[in-house]
Formats: sequence, structure tokens, C-alpha cells
Amino acid sequence: MPAKDIFHDAVRLALEKDSWSITHDPLSMTIDGIEFYIDLGAERLLAAEKEGQKIAVEVKSFLGKSDISEFHTALGQTLNYRSVLRKKQPERVLYLAISYEIYTEFFTIPFIQEVIAEHHLKLLIFETKKQEIVLWKE
Amino acid sequence: MPAKDIFHDAVRLALEKDSWSITHDPLSMTIDGIEFYIDLGAERLLAAEKEGQKIAVEVKSFLGKSDISEFHTALGQTLNYRSVLRKKQPERVLYLAISYEIYTEFFTIPFIQEVIAEHHLKLLIFETKKQEIVLWKE
Repeated sequence: MPAKDIFHDAVRLALEKDSWSITHDPLSMTIDGIEFYIDLGAERLLAAEKEGQKIAVEVKSFLGKSDISEFHTALGQTLNYRSVLRKKQPERVLYLAISYEIYTEFFTIPFIQEVIAEHHLKLLIFETKKQEIVLWKE
Repeated sequence: MPAKDIFHDAVRLALEKDSWSITHDPLSMTIDGIEFYIDLGAERLLAAEKEGQKIAVEVKSFLGKSDISEFHTALGQTLNYRSVLRKKQPERVLYLAISYEIYTEFFTIPFIQEVIAEHHLKLLIFETKKQEIVLWKE
């Protein structure tokens, strides 16, 4: 199984353990003729629901050669997905899911924390092996 | 010459024809231990100056298989570069340089225009073959 699918499945399982129902996998969206689900090379977006709350989760594995390059893509993708969701499913809240390892190694760097705060990104931090949610960070 | 270097050189020449002096190629920046110049796979950032105005130019060729995937990366990269510049060289204004072809084919899509407006991106649109600036769009 490709490593990025391992991360995807870990998040899916972690959400289910936390009593979320997975409603779409992948969640596909089209706007002005742009098809977000054929987004090449991108991790698939998950949609889940729990007690009336609806979320979309973008899982990023950070398996590329450079964390900062991966972060450029993660940031752009999250902001674009958020802009589409605002128009298509405004009730659904978007989270960027990252492993606890990449959170402690990279996302705690002050500059990265500032970028996250500047763009109001919401993070879902998960434990890859245990397939458990560690923290929701808003 | 790799196609992405052709775009880079076209922008460099276009700026010179418009009386800009190229001061850094590439412009490298480091913040909190993150080295932006070793940013793998990324196009190199250019720095130029004219009559006291200082700019940084990120050239994106959009040569990948999917325009929306390229756009995710371009958006994230531009916002991250802008955040670094704000701290390191606040007087320098950042432009995202794209060809006239990709501007008319993709950047005129309403959703993309809205994203550009939401994040206040500044565009420099250039003619690849003539190596000339077509438009500065703020």
C-alpha cells in the first residue's frame, strides 16, 4: 500500500474510533468547471459527520523530500479547498490532518506556527501507528 | 534547457527590457532554520529594483499535468514567500509571474479570480516568446 494511503486510512480509522461517521471518501467538488477530485497527486479529501457537525479532512503525509515544499502545497490546497467549501458546503469545517511526528518536527517551528495562525488553519493531529486522534488544534 | 528555466529567463529579460535591474537570481531566504532557496522543485525567486522600488518575482510555469494542482502549490508558495519577505525585507513587494496563455486559460476562471482577490495576490503577466511584460495586476 502506498505510504500516503496508510496515512489516509489511519485518519479514517482514528475518526471512526472517535465516533465520526465517514460520509464521503473521497469528497469530490467541482466549481466553475474545475474538478477538485481529479486533483493529481493530491491526497483524497475525507468527509465525516458526528452529532450534526460536518467536517472535511485533508490528510497530508509530508513524505516528499522537503518539508517546506510539502508545506507550500498543503497551505495552497487547504486554502483552495476552504474557499470551495465556503461556496458549496458552508456548514462543513475543514481540517488539515498531519501526523504527530511532522507536527512536533516541523509545525512547531515559529515561522510555520505564524503562517498557520495568519491563515486560521485548523489542524487535526493523529498518531499514525495507533490510528488515533491526538489533538484538534483550532 | 528545461522548460521552467525558459519561463524564468523570459521574465528576467522582460524585466530588464522594462528597465528593472536584476539584483538577486536566485533570491534566497532563511527563517527559523528553514532554507527557502533549497526549496526542491520550486522555481527560483528573482529580485529586481527600479527607481527605488524593490520587487521579488516568483515565476510559475504551470507545466504540470493539472492546472489546479499547480495552482495549489503556486498559492501556498506565494503566501509563504510573502510571509517571509514581510519579516526579512518588508519593503520588497512580491509578484507571481505567469504567462499570458495560462492567465487567459486558467486565471480568468471566476473561482480562481476570487481566490486571487481573497489573498490579495499581485500578478505579473508576461509574453513568453516576446519576453515582454503584458500587465502588472494588483
